[in-house]
Amino acid sequence: MAIKITDLETPCVLIDLDRVEANLKRAQAEADRLGLNLRPHIKTHKLPRFAKRQVELGAAGITVQKLGEAEVMADAGLTDIFLPYNILGAHKLGRLKALNNRVTLAVTADSPDTVAGYAAAFATGNPLTVLIECDTGMGRCGVQTPAQALALARQIRLAPGLRFGGLMTYPLAGARDKAEAWLAEAKAMLAQDGIDCPVISSGGTPDMWKGHSGSAVTEYRPGTYIYFDRFEVKVGAGNWDDCALTVLATVVSRPTATRAVIDAGTKTLTSDMLGLEGHGRIVGYETAVVKSLSEEHGVIELGAPSDSPRIGETIRIIPNHACVVSNLFDEVHLISGEALVETVPVAARGKVQ
Amino acid sequence: MAIKITDLETPCVLIDLDRVEANLKRAQAEADRLGLNLRPHIKTHKLPRFAKRQVELGAAGITVQKLGEAEVMADAGLTDIFLPYNILGAHKLGRLKALNNRVTLAVTADSPDTVAGYAAAFATGNPLTVLIECDTGMGRCGVQTPAQALALARQIRLAPGLRFGGLMTYPLAGARDKAEAWLAEAKAMLAQDGIDCPVISSGGTPDMWKGHSGSAVTEYRPGTYIYFDRFEVKVGAGNWDDCALTVLATVVSRPTATRAVIDAGTKTLTSDMLGLEGHGRIVGYETAVVKSLSEEHGVIELGAPSDSPRIGETIRIIPNHACVVSNLFDEVHLISGEALVETVPVAARGKVQ
Repeated sequence: MAIKITDLETPCVLIDLDRVEANLKRAQAEADRLGLNLRPHIKTHKLPRFAKRQVELGAAGITVQKLGEAEVMADAGLTDIFLPYNILGAHKLGRLKALNNRVTLAVTADSPDTVAGYAAAFATGNPLTVLIECDTGMGRCGVQTPAQALALARQIRLAPGLRFGGLMTYPLAGARDKAEAWLAEAKAMLAQDGIDCPVISSGGTPDMWKGHSGSAVTEYRPGTYIYFDRFEVKVGAGNWDDCALTVLATVVSRPTATRAVIDAGTKTLTSDMLGLEGHGRIVGYETAVVKSLSEEHGVIELGAPSDSPRIGETIRIIPNHACVVSNLFDEVHLISGEALVETVPVAARGKVQ
Repeated sequence: MAIKITDLETPCVLIDLDRVEANLKRAQAEADRLGLNLRPHIKTHKLPRFAKRQVELGAAGITVQKLGEAEVMADAGLTDIFLPYNILGAHKLGRLKALNNRVTLAVTADSPDTVAGYAAAFATGNPLTVLIECDTGMGRCGVQTPAQALALARQIRLAPGLRFGGLMTYPLAGARDKAEAWLAEAKAMLAQDGIDCPVISSGGTPDMWKGHSGSAVTEYRPGTYIYFDRFEVKVGAGNWDDCALTVLATVVSRPTATRAVIDAGTKTLTSDMLGLEGHGRIVGYETAVVKSLSEEHGVIELGAPSDSPRIGETIRIIPNHACVVSNLFDEVHLISGEALVETVPVAARGKVQ
């Protein structure tokens, strides 16, 4: 007998397999149409099975954010991994070297120090592919100017154990034009120096569908598009019916006619606001506001006095940010419609190092 | 040879054992002086060894927020556990019944529905102690009036399998007078009805040291006092030198003379702001601001252009909120001074159910 969603212990995470499949196929088709390599970021799902499915459907490989995530994915059989991060220190460089012997690997650097570390660690053995991270407006990591990118590319090319892989950026949402101009200028400076730039990699689900014609970008790294979430719907990247990850919670208290309290707080939904009001959208109670969270409680304000939802009722919440929810659960439930298909461990959860 | 903190992989969590011991002893001494039972909330540390130490030093028992946390602590040998939560549904009530046969247990209720669930589940076997959760100003769970508390106490006393354990509240910080008046009124109404109120339980580290004289409260449930954090220092509950939990992070990028990027983001520090500016205090760089976090990056703005901190340098951060950091790490490092003492699993981490 099939287990129904409503029979599951709460709080828990439900992943709608049909929506996942549709989201993956739609993005791959769009990437194909645009002539872009798709290299999905697995931080959103942290599940080897979905990484494999992304590759089966046509992805060039996967993106991870941590060495520990890369190791989990390599163990699961993924063979082409991009780790866009500065990897520092003897121990992590040792792990990187071991990983580079197992899979097709690329990393990033944004400073001479980081490149020097790679050059020393990879002086012998299989060469390491290094892309240059470019700060095209995000204000996080990255070289600040195309001239700095050129200098770093030269340093990489001088190191016998390193291969220059291209340019990588995480653009500021809504500032794509600036990013495009930055990357085009860097590419031209590299070309003038006789340096080929095989890959220009960009990312971010919010701008996934926007204007790639004439772009220097060759590869795209969306993450959240597999599940979407309340933020992605707000910025127009997807619709409510695309949202594949929901948190199932139980109403544990109805202190007043307009207040309901659920067993999902920041330990389930996190405190990520992403500029939104409230902490999620409640399916079937769309006018209700998830007003505040503490660690194990969520306080819902109903638009008007109501007996519903009742104590013991289960509700489904589309979170503000799906990626961070995946990181809080040891396992998630894969569903189809209202039925449980399988419960799986979140293999790359909590890989902070 | 002793391992030094600076040899540890980052990001990671360091727990200063000497500070923990001092914090626990100071709180126990203060509770003794005030004639209050101390019942520490283990959500902050999630470590059986610290729960045991709290009891060794004189705590009446421990507080947990989830059945899963209670089960971990019972497995570890803790014998007196308070679970101030509405437990609903056949499966969870079954777990509660099993737990009630192993340890001295108490739970809460704030509605007739929840009490009815307990009454049915505990109709046979060992009786369950139930306290009534009171909303004295927090606006979360809890009965709304002393009259509702009285009605619920009567319902509990009519159920053969239940024992009325008293009143419980999590007061709104800074509104202690209102909470005290609420509880005193409820206690008087119960007394008028001939109902003894053995325990009146309150909580919250911020108000831990404030004015208990003449209070109706018999038991206190502080959590964060074991570690303190940036929020607790801001509200005056502790000093920087009391802060026992720090996140060790590595500077991975210095994109500009005033910007440093570390390998600790929301997957390490969470997005909890608690009304503060910035995401933590950097030990040794107190004028620097942890300006923004993404999942795996923290962006630090230095007060003035500087070469320090350099790429590869490790820094220690006192987080805004210690409890939520404990929940993100599979293990933490116990330290004394600058030396590693032991690395231990966070046994009650991720127990969402």
